[in-house]
Amino acid sequence: MKIYLAGPDVFRPDALTWAEEARALLARHGHHALIPSDNKETSAEEIFRANIEMIREADAVIANLNPFRGCEPDSGTSFEIGCAIALGKRVVAYLADTRPQLDKLAKFYGGTLARREGRAVDPDGLTIENFELPVNLMLGISCQIVQGGLEDAVLALAAG
Amino acid sequence: MKIYLAGPDVFRPDALTWAEEARALLARHGHHALIPSDNKETSAEEIFRANIEMIREADAVIANLNPFRGCEPDSGTSFEIGCAIALGKRVVAYLADTRPQLDKLAKFYGGTLARREGRAVDPDGLTIENFELPVNLMLGISCQIVQGGLEDAVLALAAG
Repeated sequence: MKIYLAGPDVFRPDALTWAEEARALLARHGHHALIPSDNKETSAEEIFRANIEMIREADAVIANLNPFRGCEPDSGTSFEIGCAIALGKRVVAYLADTRPQLDKLAKFYGGTLARREGRAVDPDGLTIENFELPVNLMLGISCQIVQGGLEDAVLALAAG
Repeated sequence: MKIYLAGPDVFRPDALTWAEEARALLARHGHHALIPSDNKETSAEEIFRANIEMIREADAVIANLNPFRGCEPDSGTSFEIGCAIALGKRVVAYLADTRPQLDKLAKFYGGTLARREGRAVDPDGLTIENFELPVNLMLGISCQIVQGGLEDAVLALAAG
């Protein structure tokens, strides 16, 4: 399978090494990795078009949904998953912590969450979804979520 | 136009009032609002399906990309924009602060950002995109970004 790898890993200090290792890992499992950092484009518009093209070309998407600069997944990754789902692609997402959002946000905000009309809220007073999902329901329902890392996602994809 | 309103506003304490006001605002401009909180579904899966159905039905999407629980936009909203773009819909996104990500993240992290090989990085050492865009390039390129709120986005949509 041609698998697009969505995630904030392109921002890592070792992004090129990461990409090489991810490509080798997928090859060992018989897959071809499509990796955003691969493209040599230098403008935002060219990177955008190259990524969209790779998502269209992919048979499936594997996404890193771990928290990025806070407690939300990377917005670029979330966008790319939305594209992939609308195009009918299967998406497997991996998370180090697959506990429900409610538990993870309680920990993130340092303990007990306030409640309003029986529902947990964050410090801004915004309701926290309570569907026992580890991420926003649009991602939690559309993606197959696996606990672990890239290889766990590859195995889950193969398991079908 | 039928306009889907994507955003974390569904989590507000005054979500129902917000939805009523947003609906009235769009009606004054001759549009019909499709609002996620409108649906009466009670399971995550039903809400997911209702939202996707509304995005498919919409002529355009207006999205609230303001920071949500940190410095990233809401991941559910980012997902929905990805869907809309893949389905060929026009998306106008509004932001209170349309300065480049680099400036906003410097402020968010309390001042000067560290640099690595000449590029600004966040406290986790992750590179910060430097394309003068106010959000991740996948959103910044695919959406028309307007400074302001919902009504500014409605006006931008009408202006074409």
